[in-house]
Amino acid sequence: MEKIKGTLFLIPTLLGDSPIENVIPTYNIEIVRNLNIFIVEELKSARHFLKKAGYPRPFDSAEFSVLNEHTPSTEISELLNPLRNGLSVGLLSEAGLPCVADPGASLVSICHLEKIKVIPLSGPSSLFLALMASGFNGQQFVFHGYLPIEPKDKIRKIKDMETSVLKNKQTQIFIEAPYRNKKLLQFLAETCRPDTLICVASMITTTEESITTLPAFVWRKKIPEIDKKPVVFLIGI
Amino acid sequence: MEKIKGTLFLIPTLLGDSPIENVIPTYNIEIVRNLNIFIVEELKSARHFLKKAGYPRPFDSAEFSVLNEHTPSTEISELLNPLRNGLSVGLLSEAGLPCVADPGASLVSICHLEKIKVIPLSGPSSLFLALMASGFNGQQFVFHGYLPIEPKDKIRKIKDMETSVLKNKQTQIFIEAPYRNKKLLQFLAETCRPDTLICVASMITTTEESITTLPAFVWRKKIPEIDKKPVVFLIGI
Repeated sequence: MEKIKGTLFLIPTLLGDSPIENVIPTYNIEIVRNLNIFIVEELKSARHFLKKAGYPRPFDSAEFSVLNEHTPSTEISELLNPLRNGLSVGLLSEAGLPCVADPGASLVSICHLEKIKVIPLSGPSSLFLALMASGFNGQQFVFHGYLPIEPKDKIRKIKDMETSVLKNKQTQIFIEAPYRNKKLLQFLAETCRPDTLICVASMITTTEESITTLPAFVWRKKIPEIDKKPVVFLIGI
Repeated sequence: MEKIKGTLFLIPTLLGDSPIENVIPTYNIEIVRNLNIFIVEELKSARHFLKKAGYPRPFDSAEFSVLNEHTPSTEISELLNPLRNGLSVGLLSEAGLPCVADPGASLVSICHLEKIKVIPLSGPSSLFLALMASGFNGQQFVFHGYLPIEPKDKIRKIKDMETSVLKNKQTQIFIEAPYRNKKLLQFLAETCRPDTLICVASMITTTEESITTLPAFVWRKKIPEIDKKPVVFLIGI
């Protein structure tokens, strides 16, 4: 008889310093409390989250493995050994949903190959919350990750995105390294047509949440203090 | 002095018949219980959700307006009158997140014009849960809504999507009218290259949840019974 395998739970974490019950369903908290093995993007933030979830045992009694952009691809498969041996595992990224603009997808793809059950839990996604609140079309959208760094390439990308908005009403979503947020918004506002709508969604789910949609020519006049904050940028109609 | 305006809360609802605490944060439930005015995609499902959230007053005492794909665009603005008069309003779609593959974006865009505060609440999105659990790249992805109906156009679209996957590792997400799910999967499996990976995510967050990623040639051999179920389709790598 084939061994019964464990389940990989994809566990969303907080986007910022908000109370856990504001963004995480009670069910997730129960799941987290019952798990003893975690694969995490960053140890410190994962432990902080478990603490907020009222994890009932000392962390020494739990097993933590790190999976981030530096993990060699040859080492990913062995992270699944507990699952192969029938134990369930929680996957946590540093903020928001695992595998969405975050590591984890390669781990999940091995689960599909080996028929290990994967259960995604509901939770906050800065991309989706920004999309919902932008006022832009949610019937067609694209997430680009980061824009190209070279100014020439960045201009071309922005022009392509504007075309997709106007031609297909396809909402464009992207992010930037937090310390370059202001610079990107300045660049965007100057590169876009004056009436192109840009949404800046910062500090989502926290008390400092700000989600503002304005035409490029208005942004040009005043770039807000968004450096070092988590920000999602959108262009849309 | 300018009148203080109400807040528009974007309130996620259930994706299927799951306990509310499995997918909705406690905070949302408190917000819902305190609201008296709702803009809803469908009256019956909205009341069902409010009931599950333990709405404490008779529905007759609350105000419900309907906003769906049949609402004339000239009538959307007046739905915001309570907000202009200082009252807060909840926006609910039939399932999942308002404004994402659902009506509501035009309402939110007027809020931005009139500086009415919009607060998106966390909750389940079948698109994001499917993306997380597919094992596909979550660093770049696109949501297409429905594919074209004409076979010739549909083939071209599928070929374009395959190219985006192979060239840019961009995960492709789309949906179909539930009674045509099987037909679409059959068509997809036959149109894609044999080794293209297709993920079928059905009945997400329910006890019948099934999220399966397989190459096209394996799907060809056996199309599961997915008609009349909510399904998200993905192509990726």
